[in-house]
Amino acid sequence: MHTQAVVGKGLPRIDALEKVTGQARFGGDLMRVGMLQARILRSPYAHARIREIDTTRALRLPGVKAIVTAADFARPERQSGLAYQVVRFAGEGVVAVAAVDRETAEEALELIRVEYEELPAVFTPEEALKPGAPLVWESRNGKPLSSNLIYTDTLTAGDIEAGLAQADLVLEHTYQGNAIHQGYIELHSCLAEATADGRVTIWTSTQAQFRIRAGTAAALGLPMTRVRVLPLHIGGGFGGKTQPINEPICALLAYKTGRPVQLVLTREEEFVAGRPRPPCTITLKSGVKRDGTLVANQARIVIDWGALADIQPGVVMMSLHLGTGYRIPHVKNELLLVATHNRPQGAVRGLVAPELGFALESQIDTLAAELGIDPLDMRLKNAWKEGDQTLDGHRLPALGLREALEKAAEQAGWRNRKRRPGHGYGMAIGQKGGGAAPSSAGVKVNEDGTIGVLTGGVDISGSFTSIAQVVAEELGVSLEDVVIRTTDTDAAPPAQGSYGSLFTTSMGNAVQQAARQVRDQIIALASELLEANPQDLELVQRTVRVKGSPEKAIPFSELYARALTHPQGALVASGSGTPVWGAPPFAVHMVEVEVDTETGQVTVVRYVNVQDVGYALNPLSIVGNIEGGIAHGLGSALSEGLIVEQGRVLNASLLDYKIPSALDVPRIETTLVESRTGGGPYGAMGVGESPIVPPAAAIANAIYDAVGVRIRELPITAEKVFQALHGHGKHAQR
Amino acid sequence: MHTQAVVGKGLPRIDALEKVTGQARFGGDLMRVGMLQARILRSPYAHARIREIDTTRALRLPGVKAIVTAADFARPERQSGLAYQVVRFAGEGVVAVAAVDRETAEEALELIRVEYEELPAVFTPEEALKPGAPLVWESRNGKPLSSNLIYTDTLTAGDIEAGLAQADLVLEHTYQGNAIHQGYIELHSCLAEATADGRVTIWTSTQAQFRIRAGTAAALGLPMTRVRVLPLHIGGGFGGKTQPINEPICALLAYKTGRPVQLVLTREEEFVAGRPRPPCTITLKSGVKRDGTLVANQARIVIDWGALADIQPGVVMMSLHLGTGYRIPHVKNELLLVATHNRPQGAVRGLVAPELGFALESQIDTLAAELGIDPLDMRLKNAWKEGDQTLDGHRLPALGLREALEKAAEQAGWRNRKRRPGHGYGMAIGQKGGGAAPSSAGVKVNEDGTIGVLTGGVDISGSFTSIAQVVAEELGVSLEDVVIRTTDTDAAPPAQGSYGSLFTTSMGNAVQQAARQVRDQIIALASELLEANPQDLELVQRTVRVKGSPEKAIPFSELYARALTHPQGALVASGSGTPVWGAPPFAVHMVEVEVDTETGQVTVVRYVNVQDVGYALNPLSIVGNIEGGIAHGLGSALSEGLIVEQGRVLNASLLDYKIPSALDVPRIETTLVESRTGGGPYGAMGVGESPIVPPAAAIANAIYDAVGVRIRELPITAEKVFQALHGHGKHAQR
Repeated sequence: MHTQAVVGKGLPRIDALEKVTGQARFGGDLMRVGMLQARILRSPYAHARIREIDTTRALRLPGVKAIVTAADFARPERQSGLAYQVVRFAGEGVVAVAAVDRETAEEALELIRVEYEELPAVFTPEEALKPGAPLVWESRNGKPLSSNLIYTDTLTAGDIEAGLAQADLVLEHTYQGNAIHQGYIELHSCLAEATADGRVTIWTSTQAQFRIRAGTAAALGLPMTRVRVLPLHIGGGFGGKTQPINEPICALLAYKTGRPVQLVLTREEEFVAGRPRPPCTITLKSGVKRDGTLVANQARIVIDWGALADIQPGVVMMSLHLGTGYRIPHVKNELLLVATHNRPQGAVRGLVAPELGFALESQIDTLAAELGIDPLDMRLKNAWKEGDQTLDGHRLPALGLREALEKAAEQAGWRNRKRRPGHGYGMAIGQKGGGAAPSSAGVKVNEDGTIGVLTGGVDISGSFTSIAQVVAEELGVSLEDVVIRTTDTDAAPPAQGSYGSLFTTSMGNAVQQAARQVRDQIIALASELLEANPQDLELVQRTVRVKGSPEKAIPFSELYARALTHPQGALVASGSGTPVWGAPPFAVHMVEVEVDTETGQVTVVRYVNVQDVGYALNPLSIVGNIEGGIAHGLGSALSEGLIVEQGRVLNASLLDYKIPSALDVPRIETTLVESRTGGGPYGAMGVGESPIVPPAAAIANAIYDAVGVRIRELPITAEKVFQALHGHGKHAQR
Repeated sequence: MHTQAVVGKGLPRIDALEKVTGQARFGGDLMRVGMLQARILRSPYAHARIREIDTTRALRLPGVKAIVTAADFARPERQSGLAYQVVRFAGEGVVAVAAVDRETAEEALELIRVEYEELPAVFTPEEALKPGAPLVWESRNGKPLSSNLIYTDTLTAGDIEAGLAQADLVLEHTYQGNAIHQGYIELHSCLAEATADGRVTIWTSTQAQFRIRAGTAAALGLPMTRVRVLPLHIGGGFGGKTQPINEPICALLAYKTGRPVQLVLTREEEFVAGRPRPPCTITLKSGVKRDGTLVANQARIVIDWGALADIQPGVVMMSLHLGTGYRIPHVKNELLLVATHNRPQGAVRGLVAPELGFALESQIDTLAAELGIDPLDMRLKNAWKEGDQTLDGHRLPALGLREALEKAAEQAGWRNRKRRPGHGYGMAIGQKGGGAAPSSAGVKVNEDGTIGVLTGGVDISGSFTSIAQVVAEELGVSLEDVVIRTTDTDAAPPAQGSYGSLFTTSMGNAVQQAARQVRDQIIALASELLEANPQDLELVQRTVRVKGSPEKAIPFSELYARALTHPQGALVASGSGTPVWGAPPFAVHMVEVEVDTETGQVTVVRYVNVQDVGYALNPLSIVGNIEGGIAHGLGSALSEGLIVEQGRVLNASLLDYKIPSALDVPRIETTLVESRTGGGPYGAMGVGESPIVPPAAAIANAIYDAVGVRIRELPITAEKVFQALHGHGKHAQR
């Protein structure tokens, strides 16, 4: 590989100007002639039979153009966004209205009478698993269900009982994750327009237009050729915009009215009917040798699956990276997904990895404290190194975990840390790697020698900038010479979407493959025209030239024209990124906190993080992504969490649900490690989720270091610390 | 090749419902928040120096947001749509205004004062070529010009002087073509929006989005990565929407105002500042043996190139198919393009082929009449057959010309035609083949096994339906399983555009190549999964199966999923149609006319046409295209023509410029010949232009047959026939 000219540079995002000037168009900015506005009537009950829906008065309201219920869908029993016969959570949609404006639609909702028969409900996995508990679902995928246990699976290595028996010390603790919302600023918004030929076009704010198409087509009982989804700029997604929530409703209203229909949720609806992270209880039983060698770890993970879940259970199972990071010969991870009458659940940055990380990294420190071993030494002793094997059987390459541990310790001054009252130091490691799913992309040369890239993904966190850099690199042009676009699902090449830390690896490999094909076309044609050996040619500044003889050169613009009268034809290629397994993107976080022992208030005063990113395609973008992830993790660790009573969200606003503001986030010191062992271009890894994994445990560990109390339930509010310190309440130290 | 299941069928257009219900969005339907309207102030003079432009008062008018002139462009001397320093035709744009609405913009135009210094002008090639005539252009492409002769070239075969000397009969006649407008119903309309990052997005009604991008980028001095063109549905183009006319102006106003700017021309502007067909004078000197064998043909073609022309002179030269269709050993074709101060010229369906056809086919009948040979025998004697060579050196395959002549004669009852007073029979042949330029396209399999196709062309005359049929055919699915889209110039694979009868061959080959690659991917993967030989597999109904063992099958939907975890990756491919030369698409037209000798009125009472289409991908669509082409040809033959005095168009409205209505078009009897010798998929040819070539000569020949007068100037109005019949005026029979 030649010296990198474009990748590895911290170039500004290609969409920066458009966005900072407010010119980028988001879902709510869309306007179509004759556009209607939709609103949804939601159930006040968590579990109820719908006995009757009377829309007569609402339909008489001038300006109301259509009213639909689940029964209007071709397959009403499928997840359409509206409850069919039974509501299963408080806030579930029951009736949708399209009217000439939002006010009229809201007025219409008040005129609709729904008669409910309230049914007994379950709100925790414990209640839900009791014998005789009311069933949330009586069947799933056509199969009858006799329990609320939707899914269970176990992942093992070695022999857990034997392992625990070998241990010198066995500790068991239970950790409680919190239900956090993705916290995207842009509300869910979509616009649908149907035509007489039975096709519907949907503009929507999504991380994955192909999933929106698939889900909407299924709900409407249509082939995919009839549903066209156009992604827009996205004002944050973080996992919450990967599945259709409103699109089927909006599409059905568009069919019914023959007019464009827009549906923009309110912030309250986002909280009660969005797809926040599921609450999760993790019990760890860990065995360790006296010298700190981990020998066994048993985990029981119970997830409140709510009434609906966007996530495939298998995907959660795949994410069971517990044990990841450490050589532990005997492992047993048990997963239970339990249906309840809580709001629907979804993925938030990192899926369950943050809670798993919180549990395991808290547990590691607890074991180390019991054994009198420094947390850093405990981790260095057990951390994965080259040749170790993951739970899913991959042999590890020379990953950057140890280097990150050492660099972080040096940066944080770990070995020389000073003890002061109320001041503590904590560390944690963690990762959430991307899957190895392939995407595809197209690359072409334009008439003036600039380059066009087509992808079916959407840009989040500067991902388009990074993959445009890959294309520029491969074709020897500057970033300004590359334009990258996504387009609708009819036309775009298939893609996985932009989530799960897989865009850079999946789409990065796809564009790299396509760019290399175009490069080969360029070289083959130029070699013929210049009468030169292909291996003597190089691509520089939109020109292909003979190395060492820059006067023997052809600009791409001329090649474009020559290709048209040559059997080559246009310089264009499709690439499909072949799945490549790569080493996981480990993050090591070290924090200093100050704990006010009178109030329990925790202040993070220093934040050091070192992350193995494989290869930093765009360090500027990566650092932004990582620091955003840490801020996200700080919110989850210290302040965020849905407060739910009997299935009702009590803090459904950004006033009551506390996302950290810029003032709440400390200065973060970031160092990147480049092990070049990721599955993406040049060994790059997906880096966006790992940073949310360690913060909670690092802070919990630092609090313990500062004041000797251990909080095992997220978020770690001042109230909980206070209770633990002062010996009363639920979090009183045992 | 397996039996064709989808191609060759007369399936309805895939966009039919969307269009007949009025739901398809055209340029004028677009609306953006904050959108401004643009209008253009045009010169009343055909040739004048712009001494001063005073926009002070207009700028003060409330609602006016920006006013631009050519001087505001980066390279004002390039063709931006606005005159720079000098105006060269009456109606040329001088100043453009963007205002909050159209009325305000028009009011602003009235407040602008332009001081012109009128200059002497030339309005015919004769005047323009006189020594000392005022120069329209003093330089072209940077080179100084000393004459209005913009371009001249000669095409020869054999030795014209020797050929004429060998002839038993030599006749020389001059034919006059008419300037016709394309007559599209949808006015030129575009909408531009610029963003702070210096990019501009343009929605426009065009046949060739890549040409609009290239021209606009050039006018604005931008790389192509900054200009994004999105094509819309097109309400007719016929060659008139292939080059930027308004887009650079609209884009510049968008940059200036920071707001979306829409520009929709008026019908009058279409006539005075559009791109109609150039007037053309053709003098033929033809030599023939007593037995009817053509031995020599000399042509001098003088084209009034106007003040600007969209067409590359080389393209006109390429179109010099005079001699095409007949074996003539000695040929000399001389082309002269002459600049005048007339309106700009462009391409109308068939470029100059219709006038050339009018001249040659009238000449053939004149020769036949002099020799007492039946026009059919004259043509059969001289018509090309397999092995003959075209003027550009291609050896002809077994083309369908003779078969078409014989079929048409049979259908029309030519050999048994009855002579009646005022009733005449005429025939003519003609063709306008497509170029062999390559386009590219993408094909992919969707999750449900349906197929997506991406092209950079736009749909005209059902062309998307035809190429979707090609994809369906290659992949063994039905037409309903295929969705085809175009998209913007950033994302779409490079394409030639939809003009010049080349879409079916160029894009057809591209999609066929891409579909075959996807087919190969499907077969390779299925062969592995089914453990079957690739050659034993067939693709049927979105399934790949073992021939003869239909139970051994995998649906495409499953293959989609399997491909993702296989080194194959997504099932997607790009195809770039390699240039293929094909036989020309000959049309043979035979007509019966009735001539009212008292008024000169000509009525076409029967219209028979037989065309070699190579292979009829969609006979329904082709017949529609051909019959539309004949209607177009009838208009040009009998009623259409710009009336121009001193450079000013006097009939700039659809009331005064007479396009034939449905009532004016006789029932057309169409028969297709399929020689399978075209350059497109399965031997298909581009068929849309040939039908406009023969009508004028067929009608002129029938008029001669009916009443013995020969009209050599288009259109053949009743007035001209009357003059010819009654011996006075310009068209009095010599």
